Amino acid sequence: MIVIAGVQTPEEHIQAIVEVIEKEGLQAHVSRGSDRTIIGLIGNVEPKLAEHLRQMKGVENVVKISKSYKLASRDFHPENTVISIKGVNIGGDELVIMGGPCAVESAAQIDEIAARVKAAGAQVLRGGAFKPRTGPYSFQGTGVEGLIMMAEAGQKHGLLTITEVMTPEYVDICVEYADILQVGTRNMQNFDLLRKLGTCGKPVLLKRGFSSTYDEFLNAAEYILAGGNPNVMLCERGIRTFESYTRNTLDLSAIPVLHQLSHLPVISDPSHGTGRRELVVPMTKASVAAGADGLIIEMHTDPDNSMTGDGVQSLFPDQFADLLKDLELLAPAVGKTFHTPGIVS
Amino acid sequence: MIVIAGVQTPEEHIQAIVEVIEKEGLQAHVSRGSDRTIIGLIGNVEPKLAEHLRQMKGVENVVKISKSYKLASRDFHPENTVISIKGVNIGGDELVIMGGPCAVESAAQIDEIAARVKAAGAQVLRGGAFKPRTGPYSFQGTGVEGLIMMAEAGQKHGLLTITEVMTPEYVDICVEYADILQVGTRNMQNFDLLRKLGTCGKPVLLKRGFSSTYDEFLNAAEYILAGGNPNVMLCERGIRTFESYTRNTLDLSAIPVLHQLSHLPVISDPSHGTGRRELVVPMTKASVAAGADGLIIEMHTDPDNSMTGDGVQSLFPDQFADLLKDLELLAPAVGKTFHTPGIVS
Amino acid sequence: MIVIAGVQTPEEHIQAIVEVIEKEGLQAHVSRGSDRTIIGLIGNVEPKLAEHLRQMKGVENVVKISKSYKLASRDFHPENTVISIKGVNIGGDELVIMGGPCAVESAAQIDEIAARVKAAGAQVLRGGAFKPRTGPYSFQGTGVEGLIMMAEAGQKHGLLTITEVMTPEYVDICVEYADILQVGTRNMQNFDLLRKLGTCGKPVLLKRGFSSTYDEFLNAAEYILAGGNPNVMLCERGIRTFESYTRNTLDLSAIPVLHQLSHLPVISDPSHGTGRRELVVPMTKASVAAGADGLIIEMHTDPDNSMTGDGVQSLFPDQFADLLKDLELLAPAVGKTFHTPGIVS
Amino acid sequence: MIVIAGVQTPEEHIQAIVEVIEKEGLQAHVSRGSDRTIIGLIGNVEPKLAEHLRQMKGVENVVKISKSYKLASRDFHPENTVISIKGVNIGGDELVIMGGPCAVESAAQIDEIAARVKAAGAQVLRGGAFKPRTGPYSFQGTGVEGLIMMAEAGQKHGLLTITEVMTPEYVDICVEYADILQVGTRNMQNFDLLRKLGTCGKPVLLKRGFSSTYDEFLNAAEYILAGGNPNVMLCERGIRTFESYTRNTLDLSAIPVLHQLSHLPVISDPSHGTGRRELVVPMTKASVAAGADGLIIEMHTDPDNSMTGDGVQSLFPDQFADLLKDLELLAPAVGKTFHTPGIVS
Repeated sequence: MIVIAGVQTPEEHIQAIVEVIEKEGLQAHVSRGSDRTIIGLIGNVEPKLAEHLRQMKGVENVVKISKSYKLASRDFHPENTVISIKGVNIGGDELVIMGGPCAVESAAQIDEIAARVKAAGAQVLRGGAFKPRTGPYSFQGTGVEGLIMMAEAGQKHGLLTITEVMTPEYVDICVEYADILQVGTRNMQNFDLLRKLGTCGKPVLLKRGFSSTYDEFLNAAEYILAGGNPNVMLCERGIRTFESYTRNTLDLSAIPVLHQLSHLPVISDPSHGTGRRELVVPMTKASVAAGADGLIIEMHTDPDNSMTGDGVQSLFPDQFADLLKDLELLAPAVGKTFHTPGIVS
Repeated sequence: MIVIAGVQTPEEHIQAIVEVIEKEGLQAHVSRGSDRTIIGLIGNVEPKLAEHLRQMKGVENVVKISKSYKLASRDFHPENTVISIKGVNIGGDELVIMGGPCAVESAAQIDEIAARVKAAGAQVLRGGAFKPRTGPYSFQGTGVEGLIMMAEAGQKHGLLTITEVMTPEYVDICVEYADILQVGTRNMQNFDLLRKLGTCGKPVLLKRGFSSTYDEFLNAAEYILAGGNPNVMLCERGIRTFESYTRNTLDLSAIPVLHQLSHLPVISDPSHGTGRRELVVPMTKASVAAGADGLIIEMHTDPDNSMTGDGVQSLFPDQFADLLKDLELLAPAVGKTFHTPGIVS
Repeated sequence: MIVIAGVQTPEEHIQAIVEVIEKEGLQAHVSRGSDRTIIGLIGNVEPKLAEHLRQMKGVENVVKISKSYKLASRDFHPENTVISIKGVNIGGDELVIMGGPCAVESAAQIDEIAARVKAAGAQVLRGGAFKPRTGPYSFQGTGVEGLIMMAEAGQKHGLLTITEVMTPEYVDICVEYADILQVGTRNMQNFDLLRKLGTCGKPVLLKRGFSSTYDEFLNAAEYILAGGNPNVMLCERGIRTFESYTRNTLDLSAIPVLHQLSHLPVISDPSHGTGRRELVVPMTKASVAAGADGLIIEMHTDPDNSMTGDGVQSLFPDQFADLLKDLELLAPAVGKTFHTPGIVS
Repeated sequence: MIVIAGVQTPEEHIQAIVEVIEKEGLQAHVSRGSDRTIIGLIGNVEPKLAEHLRQMKGVENVVKISKSYKLASRDFHPENTVISIKGVNIGGDELVIMGGPCAVESAAQIDEIAARVKAAGAQVLRGGAFKPRTGPYSFQGTGVEGLIMMAEAGQKHGLLTITEVMTPEYVDICVEYADILQVGTRNMQNFDLLRKLGTCGKPVLLKRGFSSTYDEFLNAAEYILAGGNPNVMLCERGIRTFESYTRNTLDLSAIPVLHQLSHLPVISDPSHGTGRRELVVPMTKASVAAGADGLIIEMHTDPDNSMTGDGVQSLFPDQFADLLKDLELLAPAVGKTFHTPGIVS
């Protein structure tokens, strides 16, 4: 950490700063410039000390040097984390596709969709059982029943399953029925939930808060990792900007940046990231080209009648299948492997 | 709601749109322009229908006319809501000040601060017992014990108390010990929590999500109101923008806008809204001038040693008292009443 | 255009609105709902009328239906615009690469870079002669001399040239020496400049303002088109968001969105869009996969000593060449053709 | 400036960094921590060196310590700048009000408005002669004729005048007819214009770019100051955020922040800052309470028929007069003086 003293800070204030630092058992390196003086701190700095220093007389700024996350950082874990679930490897050479409806609506619906997801070549079935709704008068999901329907559809069609868990008390039931637990964008800093997921024993897909920085995102991942769960995937799903034509602005730079800062797999969600069906296809391809390890894509056999009103961003099954066929060409052009069942590899 | 058909949409697509609308028992008013055709819907429109229409052939856009919130809207409740708690009226002529530390740290700390808060002329003691922390290695609060300490300090010094509740399971205990329950910015769309607060029987101060629009904010309030709790205060606490010099950008236009759209009291939080002590004083005054019904301000007797590291935005007790003295002059200049104890009114 | 009257607007106010509309020679279609009344306007609506209506008693909102740009819109020009310059076609099947330094520094520098740009397979040489600098004490460019150096280098190596023009008075000289004129992000709404470019007779690459919406971007293009110049390319170069890790957030959704709204070619600038060299490669690939018609990429033979301090986002010549080789694989996977000279096609 | 070397950077890379620094005649202070090494630079650092260092092996980050603006900074100019124009002092104790129409439309219009502006107690008449319009088909202003009309109205009614200058070639004519020259939000980084204004000899009101940081704003002011013109006022006029209910988000924290960072007067523009007439009154009051030295407010005798379509944000003359009356009470409550003519002081 570095403390910057303002222009013409008197020597006694500099000394006071140095004393506070040394009282904490840390070393202070003082560099005097023509205008300002810089005091470098060497050692493990508590956030509280940083704030204390920031308020001392003469202090103009305090600059953090080390990242506040450690376990999520590539600094201390240079090789990629590859998460293996029943033979599917996420974070390695293979491109992983997760497809399915916004919400599980019925056993027949999820079974039919699972069949199409599998036929197209995806490895994971997605579907929401508990729905967070922004208005109090909307459809709220099928709950545990939906969870069971999805588990059965996944098993029948040979697909892993992923579902969103919204509160700590539902973690156990989701662990029982799903292969991957998803944290939604509004819960990225629901610390009770993150803590619970740290000990849940199943892989977690953590969505970036729609207004969260990379640093905050990685700190949220740190919560889960710190609890003892090493299997966290980071998911870019669009951020809020001044542009309102798209539902969100899918920040694809997040993919190479997160790969640089962290060893965790990075997934892209072009459905929520754009909110418009016609943009899902190009933005899926762009995500793959940017280096995504996987995609999570909404697909619905009858999007016009989806119960959540999110159908507008769901692909039709044929679009989904065509897109995955296109990825067979694209993935190898960026060093990933991907094969739909129609291809003999 | 209005459906806009694209340039040169064929008549058969227009007819299909009209049929879907009428099948739902609604009236469709068709206006044909030179380029585009507009279809107005009269009646109660389900969100699902809107989405269905948006996906139909020929539809370029669907524009919502009615607001999705009703109970929070001034349209159907023209007079101000005034929330009365043990003789303190929030939302009327009186300016209400809530002051106190970010976190309750000890019985002595909260007692000393309460004495200063009261002496300065504030009506409400604020303090957090359960702390949401953005990093997993930070101080997490004093919990129920802290809640009890604050209740005792409030009672002893004749102050109402307000505290943040972070999960549905803590609502009951907070209701037992606090006069007002606060929902933090990261929980504005924690719908389980909002539902629980709708039946909790105590007034709620709802903080705006740091990246939420006015519309989303009022829909979140609607959740609580729809549960049967009419006593909701809206709190502007700063939004995230490209400007990072301040912790957030305190959006003071929110105060007159929310007063226009809604009948609920509007509170301003200049401490979180700026993140810097030296800005709290001018932004408190600006909030009052913009029409705020109340302020929630961090104050600490020893901010340099506050346990949350948020001391940097806490006023010293003397600053807090001076500020409240200044408000005695300012409040009447904008039609509010406010008196510190030193004044004989 | 649609006028929305507020809840319980009295009939006389509705009538006054209708009269104003009809006085302008337009038709007003009134649809009465349970809460609100909607008045649709058919005909060519002046912006002034919209504002007048917005201020009338009872009016809650005025919603624009038609787009304010016409010439830039795909509605009235369904086929793609392909801009042909000396055998290079921009906006068609071919992927076009523009490479070169931020600033032309010397004849030797631009000649050496041009040789590398050509050898790598790019078609256009980029380079700035007049530099807009955000601080008053920075390097301001080599001016007309630099322009001439770049023209010579382009001619010698068989490359088209593109350069930024910053004020109307420099348009003529830039037209004389460059094949494509570029409008920088800070000039997107410099209307004097846009008007001048409308009659300049050379193709224009218009960069999106770093805080401009798609609608504003297309209205800026309309200015040039309305002047009589049909050869406008739209260039996404990153927008300003709350995320400051990257210099800007490259909004790749802009590529398919602009293709949908407009017939003009869409170029991507991953150098300014990210501000970091190590992100340029993945974001170039992502841009191609999202459907970009071309790329504009900074490359420098000695980026560490570039005079603008923008070297940090410039590729080294070998990186640039390797990237273009990779695009030979990637481009056909998304339906574009691209060949570096090493390939016999 | 500080260079931060990444985790486990080898000693040879540290040495190479130190050599580069010392080659520039600067001192390098090396502080070795457990994870990272910090190298402090003492002396005057060129931006080019910063960029060079940023690209060297082992460098994780380069942190600027000094501000890049000097003349605009309070560090080297602790007392407030007060700009005196014909007896009106801007930046001192007096609150200064600038009022008038968006555009000068006719001699009669500006004369009538000037009379009302004066009668209400304002000191400055505002009005645009050259209009920047975001669409190519809009009203473009009355030009030099308008400028003359405004000068005459100002002189007749004893008001200073302020008008926007949009290009360097119009600076001279504006200097001839106006007392204060205004730089619009889209021109904040039009460096040719800023340079010209540096030698124009008249005070300049510089509007903040609608997506510019405080740092960029002060660097733009530095351009004018560096040219030799010390009389610059900073004007907050709203920034672009995700919230689109208001035209912009008026960032009132800018007022105390700019006062802290700089000695220049700070003006607020609640008309453009909100874009809605009904918000202008509360946001004017809030600006004064936040410490603004002056206000620039749109007022029109016939806003419904204003030629720019900006009438929706213009006050009616009576509203303007009532607002100024209210400021007589408010200004002294925050330490400013302000009197309308009706008051005997």
